[in-house]
Amino acid sequence: MKTLRSYVGGRWHEARSGFTTLVDPATEEEIGRASSEGIDFGAVLAHARDRGGPALRALTFAQRAQLLKDLSKVLRDHRDELLDLSTRNTGTTRPDGSFDVDGASGTLAYYAALGKGLGDRAFLVEGDGVQLAKTEGFYGRHVLVPRQGVAVHVNAFNFPAWGFAEKAACALLAGMPVITKPATATAMVTERCVELLVEAGILPAGALQLIAGATGDLLDRLGPQDVLAFTGSADTARGLRARGNLLAANTRINVEADSLNAAVLGPDVQDGSVTFALFLKDVVREMTQKTGQKCTAVRRILVPSGRIDAVQEALVSKLSEIMVGNPADAAVRMGPVATAQQLDDSLRGIGELRQAARIVHGSGERTDGVGAPAGKGYFLQPTLLRGDDARNAGPVHRREVFAPVATLLPYDGTAGDAAALVALGGGTLVTSAYTDDAAWAGELVARGGGGTGRVYIGSEASAAEAPGSGAALPQTLHGGPGRAGGGEELGGLVGVKLYLQRMAVQGSRALVDGLTGA
Amino acid sequence: MKTLRSYVGGRWHEARSGFTTLVDPATEEEIGRASSEGIDFGAVLAHARDRGGPALRALTFAQRAQLLKDLSKVLRDHRDELLDLSTRNTGTTRPDGSFDVDGASGTLAYYAALGKGLGDRAFLVEGDGVQLAKTEGFYGRHVLVPRQGVAVHVNAFNFPAWGFAEKAACALLAGMPVITKPATATAMVTERCVELLVEAGILPAGALQLIAGATGDLLDRLGPQDVLAFTGSADTARGLRARGNLLAANTRINVEADSLNAAVLGPDVQDGSVTFALFLKDVVREMTQKTGQKCTAVRRILVPSGRIDAVQEALVSKLSEIMVGNPADAAVRMGPVATAQQLDDSLRGIGELRQAARIVHGSGERTDGVGAPAGKGYFLQPTLLRGDDARNAGPVHRREVFAPVATLLPYDGTAGDAAALVALGGGTLVTSAYTDDAAWAGELVARGGGGTGRVYIGSEASAAEAPGSGAALPQTLHGGPGRAGGGEELGGLVGVKLYLQRMAVQGSRALVDGLTGA
Repeated sequence: MKTLRSYVGGRWHEARSGFTTLVDPATEEEIGRASSEGIDFGAVLAHARDRGGPALRALTFAQRAQLLKDLSKVLRDHRDELLDLSTRNTGTTRPDGSFDVDGASGTLAYYAALGKGLGDRAFLVEGDGVQLAKTEGFYGRHVLVPRQGVAVHVNAFNFPAWGFAEKAACALLAGMPVITKPATATAMVTERCVELLVEAGILPAGALQLIAGATGDLLDRLGPQDVLAFTGSADTARGLRARGNLLAANTRINVEADSLNAAVLGPDVQDGSVTFALFLKDVVREMTQKTGQKCTAVRRILVPSGRIDAVQEALVSKLSEIMVGNPADAAVRMGPVATAQQLDDSLRGIGELRQAARIVHGSGERTDGVGAPAGKGYFLQPTLLRGDDARNAGPVHRREVFAPVATLLPYDGTAGDAAALVALGGGTLVTSAYTDDAAWAGELVARGGGGTGRVYIGSEASAAEAPGSGAALPQTLHGGPGRAGGGEELGGLVGVKLYLQRMAVQGSRALVDGLTGA
Repeated sequence: MKTLRSYVGGRWHEARSGFTTLVDPATEEEIGRASSEGIDFGAVLAHARDRGGPALRALTFAQRAQLLKDLSKVLRDHRDELLDLSTRNTGTTRPDGSFDVDGASGTLAYYAALGKGLGDRAFLVEGDGVQLAKTEGFYGRHVLVPRQGVAVHVNAFNFPAWGFAEKAACALLAGMPVITKPATATAMVTERCVELLVEAGILPAGALQLIAGATGDLLDRLGPQDVLAFTGSADTARGLRARGNLLAANTRINVEADSLNAAVLGPDVQDGSVTFALFLKDVVREMTQKTGQKCTAVRRILVPSGRIDAVQEALVSKLSEIMVGNPADAAVRMGPVATAQQLDDSLRGIGELRQAARIVHGSGERTDGVGAPAGKGYFLQPTLLRGDDARNAGPVHRREVFAPVATLLPYDGTAGDAAALVALGGGTLVTSAYTDDAAWAGELVARGGGGTGRVYIGSEASAAEAPGSGAALPQTLHGGPGRAGGGEELGGLVGVKLYLQRMAVQGSRALVDGLTGA
């Protein structure tokens, strides 16, 4: 059994007590243990702030972009090893694991290219300068400068590689040192990523530290120049935001929380059409990929009321084909959920959904998995529910079951009704709509836009290319209002700005232009 | 004695009990009373969300800009009346009052012009579209759409006109209805502004409501699509941010809090130079304008250690010329602080500063004012303190005295030392630097940039035009990290974006371009 280590203060730290056990979720075999006991978190922060920060800020955006490019290559070069680890520690099939592992190297590469384009600058200039008085004697301009603290990243269990890399890419490019803290249960992949990157000797000292295990008093020590980026449950996010020291210092906090994303079938889409096939394919993928453990997964499926029986039948047929089991078996299409706790919570969640919906596929119980010992493994069949009163489907709009579970709901076919039902979820990361009717899509965006961070439109024209609504691409915003956390990640420069301080510079035009390099 | 009214649900509401008394701070005469008792805040929110929001969102940016232009004209046309009210209710001299009243109409006019330039669009397109797959079958673009809730504005007592107008301008332009809540003690000016605007019949129903008095359960009812913008003390801000419903819904919150802004005299600035004269003039203005009750006022004055005696002498000489008294008397240069509570807090604050600094001008006690009854009025002489150990000046870097009070501190003349001392304040709205040395200014920005929202550079070239570091111009960012609240207002579009939801739209290029009007 492997003992995971933390990388702090330029050294690998192995704890002697306080361990949490990591298991293979398909077999429940104990495969590792992790603990952060003995770490001096004050020293960790000082190492980042006093060594990592100044070293990163001494580089330009283009120079930091080159670091990201080198980091990306290291992860790509070790892809197979990381996929193997992902299967063992998170229960993902190889295609599902690649969504995480290739997502990590791909996002680093994307930000490397973006950063190269920002050039050899110490800070970014935003917008045009503006004359603020009758002459150029008083003039102003906005710049974005690196925040002078540390970026603490608390990641979710479902994306141990991508979650680490997508946050680190933005922070490092901005010039902020990173302390990354993966969810302990699936920390093995992150630990190996950091080990590979440290061995490669790419980053300056203090630029990247890893906490395997609990954060101790780390968060109590954050201050006004620091950034805390969290991905996980809405409940945990609420607790983080309420911490006294973070409130007192107005520490910048970004939250990506679970949300009740919806897929909407447009009224124009006929059975047998390309767009209908895309809808079915996407919905099944977004229910079952990573065993439904994606913050962007589809939880609610809105279908014009006259079509709901046919859609149910088609979805059930496809879901029935999915073989659930040990991802070590190449025939398996969907692995277990990641932990015993996730399984318990999912079963409880299905029970809550059943107050307003009935199961039309799946049992609502744990199942055995192909290629796994009987009675072992956190397996659950893909589970489709159906509610017939969408407006009064209470828990369906509130309770996210973080598993391959979604609920079919009818709507009246208008964009307005769809937007109103989506809004009952209180804010989502993504709303997907399947339609070839541009006017209908436009109305959905206009009426529902404020309530989601992304609208994904599946149509005949996109069918060959569209990656599914669940993919959080680095080019476009990942984040949503309300229940989804109110945060903003990725989206090109948007995600980098989380780690920059916007600042106005005022003075004579000659001085301001000289200072800002305009 | 006037009874202030609230404007809610399209009607003027006058309470019958629960009153707070408003006084003339120069005479302590009771001049008004305010209470929000009897208001149904659920109905107020519904009126904004169900009437005001849809009506505003049905307009384009250019149409909403025209509304702002009309609002601006109304306030400008009633300038004299508003200045008179300002003198009576807030104790400002006429020039100080114009900073508030003309700031209000000017900011509305600025956003009217900016909004006109945004054109007849329902939402804003941000950046270029980006191809997300091998063909244009999958493409993405970012848009900014109005949030579908209500903007609640809780303002500070010091700018009853500008504070109301600068926030309302941004929210209304974005397409969000406003509920404005001025500080009760100085609500008379805001009430009259809203009364004038309502009489003019410019805005659609539900677009603007006014709460005179306490907010009752208003804030408990805010949800995921709402925005709360607060200006005031850091302590109050912390309490607002910690409210359970706001944390649960991730309600967007913007805070502008008191901060310990610093003015830094560069080592190159010689006695008798234009820049030195500008430094003295600016510092005295930024200490005494609005009786020091500006969140952008100078609280710490950093001077190269060898020059501190000469600077002290020059500042004391200028401060001695300032006649303190009833602003109804035209000879008076500085009025009282706004309330008895402010006076008490200021005197307590000076006592705290004296733990690390000594008074070199002023008494640290209340004084009588010219033209005011003996023993009446919340008067305080401009108060200059001096500390000789800047690194260990504890309360000087922590305790804001919201009054005409500042502390002189020595530094070693390097930009690095100045930046480090400024940073002890934990984040400021503005740092002003007086220098003609571009390299020195550049180093100050590079080292101190992350810790402030604005750097104002006073130099020979800017001397004729510069308005002082305290002016929050609509073109440039108003807000700062950490202690300053972590918020962002004004700054052109930056302040408008607080009320917009950024959203990615993905699909085939034809669909995305069609939807976003690109």
